[in-house]
Amino acid sequence: MSSNSFYDRDIVSIKDFTKDDLEFIFDATDKVSKLRPAERSELGKGRTLGYIFYEPSTRTRMSFEAAMASLGGSSIGISDLKSSSVEKGESLADTIRIIDLYSDVIVLRHPLDGSSRFAAELSQNPIINAGSGSEEHPTQALLDLYTILKEKKKIDGLSIAIVGDLKYGRTVYSLLYALTNYDVDLHLVSPPSLAVRKESIYEVQGKLRIKEHSELADGVLSDADVIYVTRIQRERFPDLQEYEKVRGTYTIDENTLAKAKPDVAVMHPLPRVDEISQNIDHTKNAIYFKQASYGKELRAALLALMLNESLPG
Amino acid sequence: MSSNSFYDRDIVSIKDFTKDDLEFIFDATDKVSKLRPAERSELGKGRTLGYIFYEPSTRTRMSFEAAMASLGGSSIGISDLKSSSVEKGESLADTIRIIDLYSDVIVLRHPLDGSSRFAAELSQNPIINAGSGSEEHPTQALLDLYTILKEKKKIDGLSIAIVGDLKYGRTVYSLLYALTNYDVDLHLVSPPSLAVRKESIYEVQGKLRIKEHSELADGVLSDADVIYVTRIQRERFPDLQEYEKVRGTYTIDENTLAKAKPDVAVMHPLPRVDEISQNIDHTKNAIYFKQASYGKELRAALLALMLNESLPG
Amino acid sequence: MSSNSFYDRDIVSIKDFTKDDLEFIFDATDKVSKLRPAERSELGKGRTLGYIFYEPSTRTRMSFEAAMASLGGSSIGISDLKSSSVEKGESLADTIRIIDLYSDVIVLRHPLDGSSRFAAELSQNPIINAGSGSEEHPTQALLDLYTILKEKKKIDGLSIAIVGDLKYGRTVYSLLYALTNYDVDLHLVSPPSLAVRKESIYEVQGKLRIKEHSELADGVLSDADVIYVTRIQRERFPDLQEYEKVRGTYTIDENTLAKAKPDVAVMHPLPRVDEISQNIDHTKNAIYFKQASYGKELRAALLALMLNESLPG
Repeated sequence: MSSNSFYDRDIVSIKDFTKDDLEFIFDATDKVSKLRPAERSELGKGRTLGYIFYEPSTRTRMSFEAAMASLGGSSIGISDLKSSSVEKGESLADTIRIIDLYSDVIVLRHPLDGSSRFAAELSQNPIINAGSGSEEHPTQALLDLYTILKEKKKIDGLSIAIVGDLKYGRTVYSLLYALTNYDVDLHLVSPPSLAVRKESIYEVQGKLRIKEHSELADGVLSDADVIYVTRIQRERFPDLQEYEKVRGTYTIDENTLAKAKPDVAVMHPLPRVDEISQNIDHTKNAIYFKQASYGKELRAALLALMLNESLPG
Repeated sequence: MSSNSFYDRDIVSIKDFTKDDLEFIFDATDKVSKLRPAERSELGKGRTLGYIFYEPSTRTRMSFEAAMASLGGSSIGISDLKSSSVEKGESLADTIRIIDLYSDVIVLRHPLDGSSRFAAELSQNPIINAGSGSEEHPTQALLDLYTILKEKKKIDGLSIAIVGDLKYGRTVYSLLYALTNYDVDLHLVSPPSLAVRKESIYEVQGKLRIKEHSELADGVLSDADVIYVTRIQRERFPDLQEYEKVRGTYTIDENTLAKAKPDVAVMHPLPRVDEISQNIDHTKNAIYFKQASYGKELRAALLALMLNESLPG
Repeated sequence: MSSNSFYDRDIVSIKDFTKDDLEFIFDATDKVSKLRPAERSELGKGRTLGYIFYEPSTRTRMSFEAAMASLGGSSIGISDLKSSSVEKGESLADTIRIIDLYSDVIVLRHPLDGSSRFAAELSQNPIINAGSGSEEHPTQALLDLYTILKEKKKIDGLSIAIVGDLKYGRTVYSLLYALTNYDVDLHLVSPPSLAVRKESIYEVQGKLRIKEHSELADGVLSDADVIYVTRIQRERFPDLQEYEKVRGTYTIDENTLAKAKPDVAVMHPLPRVDEISQNIDHTKNAIYFKQASYGKELRAALLALMLNESLPG
């Protein structure tokens, strides 16, 4: 294995990753996944992950805790801000500094852009951004790419449709930036009011072949190798009728699959509400639960890289 | 030790257990309790318990966490549904599927009957029902029986009084069904409005010798080897005076003990409010704290059986 | 190392500690801090810390969890009383008895004076008072003294200023009592309405040379080797203008440091709001984060002493 540049390194933005970095992490994930439990549980032994979630999270928090436990380490932290010192008016800086003293790696979710970069500058130990503001959720993008790679055996040359609320979901932006490292065709499918923000389109233009759509048209379905679905939140629509129409049009179900490539992979960062019908859960196309499982493995590998100068094997 | 049929098996309903199953679990609990810490902490090493409590719990959650820790394993989960994805409208099915990916055994409490059966069908890993709807809490019934066995050296031939709110407590129903495997005399003591539901009486009739009482009469006290007390909740009474009367009549104190067999065992699933006077806590008859302690041991044994093909020794 | 009198001993009040006890603990903290991780993680292996916080806490809870994890042990507990049996009306006594069954050492925070003493009488396992009522927080006082000792190389002969709300903070009282074991000059600086309670002054009088001040005067600043700052809460002031005035006067910033001894040590139990300017965080005088770090080490040593008859080395 080549030199581990992730040892003691912060994971703040997906934009900080080169293609080599991505491939290095994907290789490490393969490697960690194959370790015998006894070997794997040495990689985080006696180490502590400290987490701070200023916004609610179940899946991301548990995924990191499970990943850390699989490495033999433990987790402590704050997820219920009601019963914490934050209520006493403590600054983010002080909270970070303290958790930095109590742990070996910090996982942070915060509603403000730049919060993780700020935390990384303050802390001695490495920071993992588990969601900051509206644009960054780098480990989600990493696990999304890793899932595509494992399921489609490649990323280059694929056609990928991203569907749903593309304006407000940070998952979408992180994935978009991550994909600029690859040669892909992208279909962005959303109601016009929930389209990807213009400045982000400008930023990735030239690196990706992008087509924007306001409907999940047959042409998109027949072209896509991957359909990546995101949640559409009712609160985003001033008009409930408009919401109901969009919701109906975008739902992925048996009819959608019938118009798609036979081996199309349907992904979702979860939790889903009804963007994907449960009727397709049993199909080979539905890989959203596998995606969550890859997420635990990828995060375990990332923690192992950050906590160890080199991995065994 | 005979073959372990609990390896990778769900614990959904006390009705699924044969008498052989019960005795197998009680033997395993004896065995696990006697293991040296170093041996015991190998049984769950590197394994993760995932818990989901849709209803509040302290004791049951902590008992499972302590049991898992004693086996060398760790626990992750959701007990505060306010800060979880459930708030985002995620279905029980999806929540189960995800926690299934992050853990090796799942502990679930949910207000609906059938929730654990449903979860068991979805998950790859084994499920433990930690309370579903109004009728099932199988590990509570197991620990209740184990407590009786350890303290009275037998279950067959005993006279057992169950006292309090027998209508709404799932503990009572699980215990009732568990006892049908034994030859016991049962006194059910409750205000008429809080009696055991008729359909459950019909179900266990013929397997148990049951007498129903509306008062904790002297005849019951002088006959019982075990008095199992449950909490009476004020909210169940439309008339507060009626509540106060019932509460007074049913309280177990020194006067109650004076009329009971000298070696009567007083049990309670806890938490108690004032159904049992603190004045009798120091007596040899008060075994409700021992009961909680046996609970941790029994749950540790159950987890060890579910996670290992065979136990050492 | 001399005989460990802390094995299985409760930590209830700082008043229970002799000077020998304090020095024994400080030596043990030095020793545990220097252990190799592999040795250190044997000291709590397979042991469980049970915590109960009836009042909110982030730092103290996480500090104990991190300390226990560094010894190889695990933590379970209750910090969110909304989702616990306490809501069902369970008494403190029963809650203590139960957590006693599930763990090897108990950490308790409770709003009432005497709660920890009461808990210690009930529990088989040792109790650590993590804050009870308005006067006791013994491990905070221990870590405060340890911090002074590490940073100033001595305690005897120092001049210490304690500044802020001295009436309501239990940290202040525990520190005051702890300091009676040493030969120190004490400046108590607070608005008159937030002065140390008279009965406590009487109690420590004769053991400490105390001067009370209503302002952080130049004479105090030029004399103090340590300035210990506490939070002033707005809610304590009937008059907001009075609060603003006090807040301004007591803030520790560059101007304050300019009038103080060059090597003055500025301490704070944290969380701070704006009693100490962030502008001095980078100075060598600001030792409040080191203090939090020493806190984890001291608590780890204390747990190691309570859980083991003797320490290695």
